[in-house]
Amino acid sequence: MKELKVGVVGFGTVGAGVVDNLLRNRDVIAKRTGVMLTLTCVADLDTTTDRGVAVPPELLSNDAAEAIRRSDVVVELVGGTTFAKKLILDAFAAGKSVVTANKALLALHGEELFAAAERNGVDFYYEASVAGGIPVIKALREGLVANRINRIFGIMNGTCNYILTRMEREGADFAEVLADAQRLGYAEANPSLDIDGFDTAHKTAILAALAYGHWFGIEGMNIEGIRDLKLADLNYASELGYRIKLLGVIKNVDGAVQMSVRPTLIPKAALLAGISDVFNGVMIEGDFVGQTLFYGRGAGRQATASAVVADLADLALNFAAGTRRRIPAFRKGEQFDSVTPAGECVSRFYLRLQVAECPGVIAAVTKILADRQISISSLIQHENQGENVSLVILTHPAPEKEIRGAMTELSSLSVNRAPVRMFRIEEV
Amino acid sequence: MKELKVGVVGFGTVGAGVVDNLLRNRDVIAKRTGVMLTLTCVADLDTTTDRGVAVPPELLSNDAAEAIRRSDVVVELVGGTTFAKKLILDAFAAGKSVVTANKALLALHGEELFAAAERNGVDFYYEASVAGGIPVIKALREGLVANRINRIFGIMNGTCNYILTRMEREGADFAEVLADAQRLGYAEANPSLDIDGFDTAHKTAILAALAYGHWFGIEGMNIEGIRDLKLADLNYASELGYRIKLLGVIKNVDGAVQMSVRPTLIPKAALLAGISDVFNGVMIEGDFVGQTLFYGRGAGRQATASAVVADLADLALNFAAGTRRRIPAFRKGEQFDSVTPAGECVSRFYLRLQVAECPGVIAAVTKILADRQISISSLIQHENQGENVSLVILTHPAPEKEIRGAMTELSSLSVNRAPVRMFRIEEV
Repeated sequence: MKELKVGVVGFGTVGAGVVDNLLRNRDVIAKRTGVMLTLTCVADLDTTTDRGVAVPPELLSNDAAEAIRRSDVVVELVGGTTFAKKLILDAFAAGKSVVTANKALLALHGEELFAAAERNGVDFYYEASVAGGIPVIKALREGLVANRINRIFGIMNGTCNYILTRMEREGADFAEVLADAQRLGYAEANPSLDIDGFDTAHKTAILAALAYGHWFGIEGMNIEGIRDLKLADLNYASELGYRIKLLGVIKNVDGAVQMSVRPTLIPKAALLAGISDVFNGVMIEGDFVGQTLFYGRGAGRQATASAVVADLADLALNFAAGTRRRIPAFRKGEQFDSVTPAGECVSRFYLRLQVAECPGVIAAVTKILADRQISISSLIQHENQGENVSLVILTHPAPEKEIRGAMTELSSLSVNRAPVRMFRIEEV
Repeated sequence: MKELKVGVVGFGTVGAGVVDNLLRNRDVIAKRTGVMLTLTCVADLDTTTDRGVAVPPELLSNDAAEAIRRSDVVVELVGGTTFAKKLILDAFAAGKSVVTANKALLALHGEELFAAAERNGVDFYYEASVAGGIPVIKALREGLVANRINRIFGIMNGTCNYILTRMEREGADFAEVLADAQRLGYAEANPSLDIDGFDTAHKTAILAALAYGHWFGIEGMNIEGIRDLKLADLNYASELGYRIKLLGVIKNVDGAVQMSVRPTLIPKAALLAGISDVFNGVMIEGDFVGQTLFYGRGAGRQATASAVVADLADLALNFAAGTRRRIPAFRKGEQFDSVTPAGECVSRFYLRLQVAECPGVIAAVTKILADRQISISSLIQHENQGENVSLVILTHPAPEKEIRGAMTELSSLSVNRAPVRMFRIEEV
């Protein structure tokens, strides 16, 4: 049986999962692919901490270069964008293909890395970079290749989804649940990458690129996290039949691309709204296939390892077939005219105002909306809220710049008591 | 740009969808794969009926052999198991790769066809044979290749799921909804293949084979359809927090495989229970990835075409890379010791008895269960049902043979008034 030599660089959580998978499941992978994946080196600065897997000591090294030398394929799991980038370029230069889970690196330096892979005639796979164990890159790039992609909606950050699920279930505030998530290891000590939406943005950029043939990156993407999300908004959304999720959104509207990462209202009845806790889900809508949904664990040692080793198995098949670059890291092929600025995007909106309860308030508020041709589909003001009351409005589709204009005017009303809250609504 | 010549045999619903896709989306597929898929022949006995797609007349033929001669790849969409089989073998013999959506043919003659493809050194792909547009074969065979598969639960027949959804939503009887589904074109005039579970069984057999490396076929599979399903059982299930779905079930328990197609209770809270109408969903649970779910349209002209053309794109990539049989039609590699007979399978059960309302009935019923060590987890008997009452019991896990034994005894109770209804319960 043919054998593919695998070097792993980065023996942290995911690295240990990959090593565990290769040691425990290489027999069944060999039955399925006809190739034996053989672990030849595990490199990390720290090779002494117990990772819960029994690596033969002769495979351990403190030198990443050793992993490159001893292998046919290098798995980059060190994270970050500096050493990881150098490691990958070194591996390419040595003629070795690379598998990575590093979405931040791809979003930032994707094009440079893809060019280097091409120059060196090697493969570069990154299934684990989006939605962890869910094979969504393979689905988009291969399984749904026959479709023009209309829309992609992704719940792609387990930390945020866990926090939102608990806030909704327990009626708890953001800060309280975040602190608990940190205690349980579901959120980092510095949670910004997750809760401010950047991690979701990296993944959104990768999916958008594969859908539309242009490497967008996250420059200029409209990104908003969940840090300022109030329990009151989750509750009002729920009352109105919606759930708020941190959604990566990609749309093709009139030949232009819209991309954003924002807390978004989606109907509770939608399958996507049922994705809770740390799970991820990606809805992909194609012109022929219609709506599809891919669901599973978006992070964690074992689920991420599943995706990394799937890439290794793909490389093993290439290796056995004597082919490289059957599917290049990224193939350019633009399908769009332009990226639509956030202000030009049309959607439905949720607005929540806090206003003094006195005559003429609703008249003043609704006149501001009416003057901008913003049509109201639903309005709630509950009784007995005290002196300042929440006024919640759902709109029909309107351009975001009109909504933002209205928000400025609403904020300057003398009866206004707090910043106006605004979220997009997406029909799934 | 390289060009792959495609011949389509069978210009019915799906055939027209494939032709439509190739004519409308070949530009975007070429951008993504670097290969142009060129339609070179569409063969059918009937080439005059308007299929809603503008095929250049010189591509039409009444001769399937013409499609083989003019193409690099043949798409078999004639259905059935006689002419379709001959056509595929003829294509293989001519050195042409084949794409099919024909699950019945695969379930019946898979191994013979796989051997012929191997002998002729050609590719044979069949993504569209399971769950229509959902790329679930690619997910199982490639995306989740690093996993030992614990369980697969599939809602894979749109006709049945449509009928069950309407029965539950409208409180309608099976026969009534079936008649309506036939009128709307969602069910065949002869609906047996769908409603008696055979179509789901064909798909279950294919997924089981890919999961466990043995071509099982449907011989000896435990198959039960929805023809005898009563509205009362959907209602009781709902009251208890469950929904009844026609589920293809594949499990690996203690090194043996369990396979069945049966109406099954699943918890309403499970994502799988939210799959309604004609949609399909497949839950795949692997040892590393955990639970994943793949959702979309399982049938129809456009969704099925999406899967067929995805296979063509895969073949195009092989063609451009100068490789064949990178992923063979089927690779043997058994992982199991045996297939567990239905009677030995352990699960929870739903039982509904219709009994006379008189003293001692529940005592007699529960004694029969107790004597067989069948433990009751829930029991319902509503008031005011009249002379004969429904008694609904959910059990803790028990071997099916004990349940069937108990059913025989229950049926012979003097107070029994109707056949005992029994369904499995699966926790998702």
